[in-house]
Amino acid sequence: MTYFSTVSNVRYEGKNSTNPFAFKFYNAEEVIGDKTMEDHLRFGVAYWHTFTEDLTDPFGVGTAIRPWNHLKGLDLAKARVEAAFEFFEKLSVPYFCFHDVDIAPEGENLKESNKNQDVIVAMMKDYMKDSKTKLLWNTVNNFSHPRFVHGAASSNHADVFAYAAAKVKKGLEIGKELGAENYVFWGGREGYETLLNTDMKLELDNLGRFFHLAVAYAKEIGFDAQFLIEPKPKEPTSHQYDFDVASGYAFLQHYGLEKDFKFNIEANHATLAGHTFEHELHYARIHGMLGSVDANQGHPLLGWDTDEFPTDIYATTLAMYEILKNGGLGRGGLNFDAKVRRGSFAAEDLVEAHIAGMDSFAVGLKVAQKLLDDGVLEAVVEDRYQSYSTGIGKQIVDETVSLQELEQHAYTLDTIQQTSGKLERIKAIINQYVLTMYADQ
Amino acid sequence: MTYFSTVSNVRYEGKNSTNPFAFKFYNAEEVIGDKTMEDHLRFGVAYWHTFTEDLTDPFGVGTAIRPWNHLKGLDLAKARVEAAFEFFEKLSVPYFCFHDVDIAPEGENLKESNKNQDVIVAMMKDYMKDSKTKLLWNTVNNFSHPRFVHGAASSNHADVFAYAAAKVKKGLEIGKELGAENYVFWGGREGYETLLNTDMKLELDNLGRFFHLAVAYAKEIGFDAQFLIEPKPKEPTSHQYDFDVASGYAFLQHYGLEKDFKFNIEANHATLAGHTFEHELHYARIHGMLGSVDANQGHPLLGWDTDEFPTDIYATTLAMYEILKNGGLGRGGLNFDAKVRRGSFAAEDLVEAHIAGMDSFAVGLKVAQKLLDDGVLEAVVEDRYQSYSTGIGKQIVDETVSLQELEQHAYTLDTIQQTSGKLERIKAIINQYVLTMYADQ
Amino acid sequence: MTYFSTVSNVRYEGKNSTNPFAFKFYNAEEVIGDKTMEDHLRFGVAYWHTFTEDLTDPFGVGTAIRPWNHLKGLDLAKARVEAAFEFFEKLSVPYFCFHDVDIAPEGENLKESNKNQDVIVAMMKDYMKDSKTKLLWNTVNNFSHPRFVHGAASSNHADVFAYAAAKVKKGLEIGKELGAENYVFWGGREGYETLLNTDMKLELDNLGRFFHLAVAYAKEIGFDAQFLIEPKPKEPTSHQYDFDVASGYAFLQHYGLEKDFKFNIEANHATLAGHTFEHELHYARIHGMLGSVDANQGHPLLGWDTDEFPTDIYATTLAMYEILKNGGLGRGGLNFDAKVRRGSFAAEDLVEAHIAGMDSFAVGLKVAQKLLDDGVLEAVVEDRYQSYSTGIGKQIVDETVSLQELEQHAYTLDTIQQTSGKLERIKAIINQYVLTMYADQ
Amino acid sequence: MTYFSTVSNVRYEGKNSTNPFAFKFYNAEEVIGDKTMEDHLRFGVAYWHTFTEDLTDPFGVGTAIRPWNHLKGLDLAKARVEAAFEFFEKLSVPYFCFHDVDIAPEGENLKESNKNQDVIVAMMKDYMKDSKTKLLWNTVNNFSHPRFVHGAASSNHADVFAYAAAKVKKGLEIGKELGAENYVFWGGREGYETLLNTDMKLELDNLGRFFHLAVAYAKEIGFDAQFLIEPKPKEPTSHQYDFDVASGYAFLQHYGLEKDFKFNIEANHATLAGHTFEHELHYARIHGMLGSVDANQGHPLLGWDTDEFPTDIYATTLAMYEILKNGGLGRGGLNFDAKVRRGSFAAEDLVEAHIAGMDSFAVGLKVAQKLLDDGVLEAVVEDRYQSYSTGIGKQIVDETVSLQELEQHAYTLDTIQQTSGKLERIKAIINQYVLTMYADQ
Repeated sequence: MTYFSTVSNVRYEGKNSTNPFAFKFYNAEEVIGDKTMEDHLRFGVAYWHTFTEDLTDPFGVGTAIRPWNHLKGLDLAKARVEAAFEFFEKLSVPYFCFHDVDIAPEGENLKESNKNQDVIVAMMKDYMKDSKTKLLWNTVNNFSHPRFVHGAASSNHADVFAYAAAKVKKGLEIGKELGAENYVFWGGREGYETLLNTDMKLELDNLGRFFHLAVAYAKEIGFDAQFLIEPKPKEPTSHQYDFDVASGYAFLQHYGLEKDFKFNIEANHATLAGHTFEHELHYARIHGMLGSVDANQGHPLLGWDTDEFPTDIYATTLAMYEILKNGGLGRGGLNFDAKVRRGSFAAEDLVEAHIAGMDSFAVGLKVAQKLLDDGVLEAVVEDRYQSYSTGIGKQIVDETVSLQELEQHAYTLDTIQQTSGKLERIKAIINQYVLTMYADQ
Repeated sequence: MTYFSTVSNVRYEGKNSTNPFAFKFYNAEEVIGDKTMEDHLRFGVAYWHTFTEDLTDPFGVGTAIRPWNHLKGLDLAKARVEAAFEFFEKLSVPYFCFHDVDIAPEGENLKESNKNQDVIVAMMKDYMKDSKTKLLWNTVNNFSHPRFVHGAASSNHADVFAYAAAKVKKGLEIGKELGAENYVFWGGREGYETLLNTDMKLELDNLGRFFHLAVAYAKEIGFDAQFLIEPKPKEPTSHQYDFDVASGYAFLQHYGLEKDFKFNIEANHATLAGHTFEHELHYARIHGMLGSVDANQGHPLLGWDTDEFPTDIYATTLAMYEILKNGGLGRGGLNFDAKVRRGSFAAEDLVEAHIAGMDSFAVGLKVAQKLLDDGVLEAVVEDRYQSYSTGIGKQIVDETVSLQELEQHAYTLDTIQQTSGKLERIKAIINQYVLTMYADQ
Repeated sequence: MTYFSTVSNVRYEGKNSTNPFAFKFYNAEEVIGDKTMEDHLRFGVAYWHTFTEDLTDPFGVGTAIRPWNHLKGLDLAKARVEAAFEFFEKLSVPYFCFHDVDIAPEGENLKESNKNQDVIVAMMKDYMKDSKTKLLWNTVNNFSHPRFVHGAASSNHADVFAYAAAKVKKGLEIGKELGAENYVFWGGREGYETLLNTDMKLELDNLGRFFHLAVAYAKEIGFDAQFLIEPKPKEPTSHQYDFDVASGYAFLQHYGLEKDFKFNIEANHATLAGHTFEHELHYARIHGMLGSVDANQGHPLLGWDTDEFPTDIYATTLAMYEILKNGGLGRGGLNFDAKVRRGSFAAEDLVEAHIAGMDSFAVGLKVAQKLLDDGVLEAVVEDRYQSYSTGIGKQIVDETVSLQELEQHAYTLDTIQQTSGKLERIKAIINQYVLTMYADQ
Repeated sequence: MTYFSTVSNVRYEGKNSTNPFAFKFYNAEEVIGDKTMEDHLRFGVAYWHTFTEDLTDPFGVGTAIRPWNHLKGLDLAKARVEAAFEFFEKLSVPYFCFHDVDIAPEGENLKESNKNQDVIVAMMKDYMKDSKTKLLWNTVNNFSHPRFVHGAASSNHADVFAYAAAKVKKGLEIGKELGAENYVFWGGREGYETLLNTDMKLELDNLGRFFHLAVAYAKEIGFDAQFLIEPKPKEPTSHQYDFDVASGYAFLQHYGLEKDFKFNIEANHATLAGHTFEHELHYARIHGMLGSVDANQGHPLLGWDTDEFPTDIYATTLAMYEILKNGGLGRGGLNFDAKVRRGSFAAEDLVEAHIAGMDSFAVGLKVAQKLLDDGVLEAVVEDRYQSYSTGIGKQIVDETVSLQELEQHAYTLDTIQQTSGKLERIKAIINQYVLTMYADQ
């Protein structure tokens, strides 16, 4: 336990603390509404960005300075586990998440890779005995290796499909072994570079088959995790099949999978698809499909996945508003699928970045809860749609009216009295809630 | 017949013609594959852009110089009908399309508006007796009037729902009266300005109810047009519910409407949603949902709907490729939902713009048919996916394999031999097809 | 004084007020740093959006309900003046801004238009005697009328150049008459729809000539306003010549105009150009070119100018930070070039929207001043660049070193010890400043 | 000479060739206008994409299969030189381009790196004796190494400035040694991740100093290459100082460098900045700043630099139009700064991709020359702007008119007769030129 030796356990010190290694807003035990902050927020650390990532970008090599950098192979993998559990403890986070290749090196072949996995999974299981930190979800990386150059489940090559399936099988077994609460599918190569050489129908059909196989096997081995699809519109592909939640939902319904899956929604993927983060959460929520969240943020002027730590209070507030309206995330959580900037290469930056994210979501939670307690937005909505609670409106909702009857009603209408949407007032009120949240404490 | 007096009937003069009022590539009678160009292309003129539009933009008033500009009210509406049928004849287009408000002015109330509609519809019906030009589709404009400020079927106000429904009822009756082959729904205000005051679930439920009412009424009156949803991601709203084909398909499945609707796909709406035109066509096609096309193009660097006339041969080729693979558009067609630029304000520009669009799709059709005749892309696809026709691949497709068996197969794999996707070669070949298409004529 | 009868004079009621017609954060007399909020912020009301605008959008007609809507021509223009000065007084704003066509109707020809201008300008001058509200800037609308379809100063038609010049002449005279502190040029049509028919060199040369003519005439009549160029990248044109501040600065230098102009920077124009608001302010500031600000905000997911009222506290904070670093805006101000949403059509929304904007900039000012008082970002910068204050760094800055000497120095370097950029920490600190700003009051 | 053994020397076989390893349109000796295709097009191979690139992307490791992949260090570097000159000969390209790190591995320190450079430069010089292929330009990579994490010339650390300067010094010496015709600066890290920790003024000043140092040293050693700045708006930084040509031109003027530099314009960088490729070429041309071209293309729907091989005939035509109007590129050329897709990993794909690009520019050249020969666009422009050749228009251009005189002229104007911009016709004509280009051969 010496990887983050310069950082003590991170404590809550309140809004005026100048200690960069303290929480200013996140107070795990503080009760918000019906439960503690910790129970509401269910934070997860992304193993890949925090322990595996070296901060390369397409125009530069890695800059990350990590105390385990000098190691190689399984030694490196083991050091990362040690560092990870030290990190989890220092931040007192309840969850973590990983892809198979994050935790252990790939071998020469599947057997060797799986053997490496087993070594590290055993080590993790051991560490988890003494740790409060649990596995929010795991997944397998079916996109980085050259074999997945043309896709995994949607590859043009049946052997690749088989290989990808075998990796998922192992992933499901590992999930069960480590008690993962969810299992995630992000189809990083499930899409296309170009339609010109692509049989999209076969690829989608195969993707549907792949998911059915995974569902069946999880049932067979008694792994009862919630399955999650993580939409992203593009990057690395030109077009990814799970473009956004709606696309994913179309797919799931078409292939009869909508009962078996929910969505893992990432803020930066939402914005790349042309949606706000809260839109994707809201759409999933009202369709009963909100599973978990990849908590990060994008740069509104950049066209790629920047995976920044979430610090925008407006976004965390609206996200937590949707999550509270959903009655929480159930088995899901808020996984920081976020990386420190390439210029924030010191190991301590990892701690500070997580603090920034956790504090931001803590504020979002408090503001959202207060908005709900005061019924601010709910009153606006109730008032705006009241015409559907009586008369012709109620008939519409009850589906007891025909087009002819609606026409008869319309003939009686002179001017329809609309009311202002009052967006400017609503935004001002939200600002007031944010700015006064910490005024009286 | 004097509105376009400077322009004679437009004839095919071949690729070297320097007559701006002649077709250089569109030859209606030319047989391509199994039918004539005219039968393949089923062009439609958009009444609104060609006869109603005045070329305002958000920073400037109308510039269009039209020989009917001096008229008002029903006189104006009647002059437009005369001009329209003259225009249709001069271009010999087989179809046209309109919204209710394009053809006749709105009255003080629904009754008066419908009366105005009746006058013009009767006049159109009369003109259609002597014209080859038929109604590809009609629709109603449930977005421009202030009453639709907060939506139509998804309005927060039940009276607006009723009014919108009454307009659709009339639209269906008019469609029947004029023999429309399709009926289109573009939900210009079916979305939201902001989630903060929106009950998306109620709005989507009501939208579903609205479509069911329309379907029921069409059946009742024996109007057997194909119903079409036209997706658009945004503009005028911040978010439109029919964001793209996949979103629309999710919606239709969720509300049990997928048998009753297909999609009317617009090129510029596709690109605003982050998709290529051909992507939307392809996705709709493989799901059996390709209904009709709004043939235009956007400006790749501008973030709004520019609705330009289609002149990009790459786009028309790939669009026609999808349409040919679909076995044609059935009752659908290629409606030029396109407007001349604000700087192209002369009446003659309308003729030239349609010629540009028709010629461009004629070229696209010929190149696409030749690509199919030579099996160029089909050979690429067949070759790339051959591993699914035997062995483990066939088992996958036949769904006779389990995850365990796939793992056993994966254990036997050493390196998987991938083949290059050869996108650069494919693009070079497409260029060659385009550039040599007219070499031997 | 009866146009906004439902709204009393807007007063500061503090952060907990629930009165929608009160300031919660903007307290005109509060001293921040070296002067009052009012002196810092120099707010201006945009005449066009507040009194002329009817809230049309490209897919819908106007929705605005205004108590002067029933009037026409000069009567309408006069009612707007009355309403405007009532509005200014109710909000106690120090400035307003207008284009010529906002305040009076265009006549049949230039003479008549100018006569209409004279009537209203005289009326305004009269109102201004009893009002604290002054003219921040005026300008002329050389973009809406069909004569400007191909540009104004950059038109292909010399008569249009002349007409535009005559309008600017009148604008300068009116500016002088009303004591405008600045004069703005926004080149809404100074750009192109397409390069294919454009002589960009002639157009730019003419634009340079046009500005020289305006500068000369202002000197001649003794109108000593600061001249401002307002960059925008596109819309309505495909490409606007004053794309961003840097483009405008290239132009001004090339034509020898950089001493005569500064920039009027609009937040939404910045983001449409791919820049943050603060980038444009910063770039202008360090080049001595920061003149004034159009205070609004865009929607990060929409590709057009949404001109929303500014409510994003992050943006107002960073904007005010730049303005404070600039030593204020001099003669410039914060003009709300912002319109209420089309759904916010009630006259009261105009009041609430301005309150939202003024409160947001008041918060931004306070947070920015506190960041400066505490030297937060300045300490970060000073620390990061300290290597330029001694040794080889100082030689570089003093320009006393050659490439050869730098090479000799580089030969002595083993690893260069970099320090983390700490963006995550900085963002967390800014959040802390925002969230605790109102904690102790 | 055995690296591309499966490919013979590439020959021109004409438009109907089905040989993927033949030119269909590029015929080096064919005379177009005043010189041969080869002299017009001055193609260059980008060493990095063709010989160094391994086709990693942010979500996947390299896929490139290259016959030199098994080597390491200087052996690898030498093999690449052999492969490169074999490749140049097979394609018979006249030029190549490189960054220092492309050709030889970096050592432990600057001295060692330079030593490695010397070895490879000597080898190249030797190869060049027997090769027709010359060095179009070289540059140094001051962006990939961790030392450049916060910039190079604009780094916050003076040692990094020195190191970057030393690398440029070596680059200039190598350029001289190998007879480079140009020397390029692409400031991949000359910008910022965030303004919050950035002293933009110091960084820009230092960048100016850096360029002055380079200019001085080149003069000192008698290296008379044309200096080129290559603009790019972002990626890897959030904002790059040389955002576009106009920004770069503002910078050069501000620092008195506009006589010493021209621009190297990359198509994909143009579109990322919100401009068309032809816009950037045109803007540079009319300011006398068009130096050279990085010939590639982006994906209009993706927000990052895809660096695709150029195959869009519209783009190559409009680019060649600008280049012909410029009287050619002088010392500049068309460098294929383009990479094969990650899925096009076979060594043969490099050959095919270059053929695709060369053929596409050959077509563009021919169409552009024909447009010029026929005066198509020039006639449009001449006609549109004729009002500036006489009367008030001539006075404007001659600068012999005052604002008052322009007003007097405007008073005489009733309606100004505008003419249509005819964009639709122009686009149709361009299509006709493209489609009939190869009709008669």
